[in-house]
Amino acid sequence: METKTPRHSEAVIADIMMPHHANGLRPASVFGGVILSMMDRCAGLSAVRYAGGQATTLSIDKVLFKEPIRTGQLVEMRARVVHVGRTSMSIMVDVFAEDIATGRRRHTNECWLTFVRLDDEGRPCPVPALMLETPEDHRLHAIAARRREHALAEREKG
Amino acid sequence: METKTPRHSEAVIADIMMPHHANGLRPASVFGGVILSMMDRCAGLSAVRYAGGQATTLSIDKVLFKEPIRTGQLVEMRARVVHVGRTSMSIMVDVFAEDIATGRRRHTNECWLTFVRLDDEGRPCPVPALMLETPEDHRLHAIAARRREHALAEREKG
Amino acid sequence: METKTPRHSEAVIADIMMPHHANGLRPASVFGGVILSMMDRCAGLSAVRYAGGQATTLSIDKVLFKEPIRTGQLVEMRARVVHVGRTSMSIMVDVFAEDIATGRRRHTNECWLTFVRLDDEGRPCPVPALMLETPEDHRLHAIAARRREHALAEREKG
Amino acid sequence: METKTPRHSEAVIADIMMPHHANGLRPASVFGGVILSMMDRCAGLSAVRYAGGQATTLSIDKVLFKEPIRTGQLVEMRARVVHVGRTSMSIMVDVFAEDIATGRRRHTNECWLTFVRLDDEGRPCPVPALMLETPEDHRLHAIAARRREHALAEREKG
Amino acid sequence: METKTPRHSEAVIADIMMPHHANGLRPASVFGGVILSMMDRCAGLSAVRYAGGQATTLSIDKVLFKEPIRTGQLVEMRARVVHVGRTSMSIMVDVFAEDIATGRRRHTNECWLTFVRLDDEGRPCPVPALMLETPEDHRLHAIAARRREHALAEREKG
Amino acid sequence: METKTPRHSEAVIADIMMPHHANGLRPASVFGGVILSMMDRCAGLSAVRYAGGQATTLSIDKVLFKEPIRTGQLVEMRARVVHVGRTSMSIMVDVFAEDIATGRRRHTNECWLTFVRLDDEGRPCPVPALMLETPEDHRLHAIAARRREHALAEREKG
Repeated sequence: METKTPRHSEAVIADIMMPHHANGLRPASVFGGVILSMMDRCAGLSAVRYAGGQATTLSIDKVLFKEPIRTGQLVEMRARVVHVGRTSMSIMVDVFAEDIATGRRRHTNECWLTFVRLDDEGRPCPVPALMLETPEDHRLHAIAARRREHALAEREKG
Repeated sequence: METKTPRHSEAVIADIMMPHHANGLRPASVFGGVILSMMDRCAGLSAVRYAGGQATTLSIDKVLFKEPIRTGQLVEMRARVVHVGRTSMSIMVDVFAEDIATGRRRHTNECWLTFVRLDDEGRPCPVPALMLETPEDHRLHAIAARRREHALAEREKG
Repeated sequence: METKTPRHSEAVIADIMMPHHANGLRPASVFGGVILSMMDRCAGLSAVRYAGGQATTLSIDKVLFKEPIRTGQLVEMRARVVHVGRTSMSIMVDVFAEDIATGRRRHTNECWLTFVRLDDEGRPCPVPALMLETPEDHRLHAIAARRREHALAEREKG
Repeated sequence: METKTPRHSEAVIADIMMPHHANGLRPASVFGGVILSMMDRCAGLSAVRYAGGQATTLSIDKVLFKEPIRTGQLVEMRARVVHVGRTSMSIMVDVFAEDIATGRRRHTNECWLTFVRLDDEGRPCPVPALMLETPEDHRLHAIAARRREHALAEREKG
Repeated sequence: METKTPRHSEAVIADIMMPHHANGLRPASVFGGVILSMMDRCAGLSAVRYAGGQATTLSIDKVLFKEPIRTGQLVEMRARVVHVGRTSMSIMVDVFAEDIATGRRRHTNECWLTFVRLDDEGRPCPVPALMLETPEDHRLHAIAARRREHALAEREKG
Repeated sequence: METKTPRHSEAVIADIMMPHHANGLRPASVFGGVILSMMDRCAGLSAVRYAGGQATTLSIDKVLFKEPIRTGQLVEMRARVVHVGRTSMSIMVDVFAEDIATGRRRHTNECWLTFVRLDDEGRPCPVPALMLETPEDHRLHAIAARRREHALAEREKG
């Protein structure tokens, strides 16, 4: 059976935020939907890389908006698979915003998503086993496991 | 002190999904980022209506993608405030997709978000108290309360 | 033969106007093309719902821009079929703009369009008969009838 | 007093229709809203050129969609002022679609709009007088005059 | 063998620059990518017209940005084939920006591109011979010839 | 006087190509203007990072389109400063396209651009000196130097 590490799933998406990405507040901040769309693409990139085949978003489990991102800044997102089930992958995305001229860089958001691998007929199919390597791998795996248990418990409560 | 009901915060966003909203899969499905952007706008509409002033997204707590939405379908989102803190509002968004010619309508997504009201200087400020009226109000309020407690507990665990 | 009322054709499209919808004037107003596109989608939604099958825009008969819409405002459009021919439908769209925080709502535009139902080969085909119910139904039906007669007379004059 | 001819107001807008302009029908046709937006920009260009200052859309009086435009085709719009009031301008836009490789060109739409000139405070202000030169100028001026009278009569009927 | 002149390949693309085309600098300038995209479409229009069939961009040989274009201005691009090889076409695009109310017009950019004609299987195929007519035709042909020689020499140097 | 190496200017932009980026050819390829826009943003990111202040595109000196990019693929661009004048920077951008599921990665484009640093009043101002470190730095510096000499010579010929 195939085994992969979180390293195999690492994915980076990056772009400069343009004026047409603004949400209308002053000073000019980026609309949350722009960030959410990039997160979904970055997590999808990580999922397809890990699964070696098509994958689709099952849920977005948590997105924290710690501070606003300004137009003109660089947004860089980094995703990796941190936990897997039989056909699903828990993915964590870190978002960084950088003031380009000064190089000042902040961690502005963090997002947890679940993707499921699909076969050619669009049915869920097995993903590779995940081999944890670093202490950080184990830490994130434990958080994702707790989230899954909690989500399961919530579903039972209705 | 001002008091409002979930009814005061009801918000509807609706539009037809166009070909340029597609994600590239067959049959043509709508890109998740398009749905997430609409959810953020619909919840923001509900938050500003309830608060009577500017509000910003603090977190997206859960989005379930139960089934894909096709291009050509109508997407209708309905949001309302279901729980409040001193300066924050928990908002639930229901997403419906409709095949327009047949009128067949499905509940495809459900999303929970937290917004915070901002004063003119961009600092958090108090929102009206929430008066629950219906059994459904109480059911959703209880779910939101459990989510908040869980999120708080998670934050303490680090 | 199938009969429907204007109620069967009611359609709502709504969204918040973002900064990238602006036309460049100060204070920031929404570009007319954005409103026209939404009107076309809203009327199309009403036409397809009424016809129970595909429909396409034949003409836009009149759009009045009574006052500008600002970015940041909610735009809500409401359409319904007010008159029918054998294969065509006259549709009226009302446009409302709302300042979200204050709840102040204005009727900013009104639009009359004609759609034609298409069969699977793209040829015009019959639509259900229209049963008028309310005095408002009769009032709008009469206006649409006058518009059709006038358009016909104009065409004969060349 | 300043006088201008329809020639002074001639305006051309042209672009290739891309796949993201499609409406979802097969064969791939351009969404009506894309055409309406271009019409509004082309008429606005003609109005500002004629008025020598800012102008805004007052009404769209008639748009005929004679036949669909396909993605991949060139769309060329030609506008000119055909009638003026004290502060308003009646503008006619002709739309042509061209299959680029074969050079086959069709007249697909025709649109009549009314714009009003605005001064720096956003109030209506006088436009130059219109001097008709050609028989075609007189023909279009007469059609526009009839439309204006009819619109006025309609307004009185309520 | 078919022969054409630069006149047969003349192509015009024009549109008003909207606020969502801005690059974020003050005063509001149009993002270079918007101009580059229009250039590619205008040159492609010229190439397909000349070749009488599908064509694709092989290279962009030079774009000079002499001065910024402001939002609200009209951009007009004019392209023509100035040199041909067996399957390739050298195309020159002139860009003009116009302040619409005053009519002040500037030549802001100039661009040289190379396109190749493709047959139905996507393979390069012959284009018509180019017959030069005017002194300007000969001047531009000579510049394009020098560019091609230089590009070839560069490729050999690696 | 400040000195920097090409490493200080390294810039990465990356994103997944969506269906709305297509150019209308089959199989679905990305429109050249989308790639050109990303190149301009990536080179601009490199220029502002190197200069430590605002910069604007002076010219695009060469873009080679070696092979098409498909929708659904990841596009990654990598830029760095390879030569500087007193106020200008020559920047090279490498473009890679990756088939995400298989991980197959190709170098599809290469682009040379010139940017100029601007001070707060929008006037050209000095950039840091460039210290070359690796044999690759020297190779690219020599190519850029030849390009600049050639461009200068061309300008003199008119």
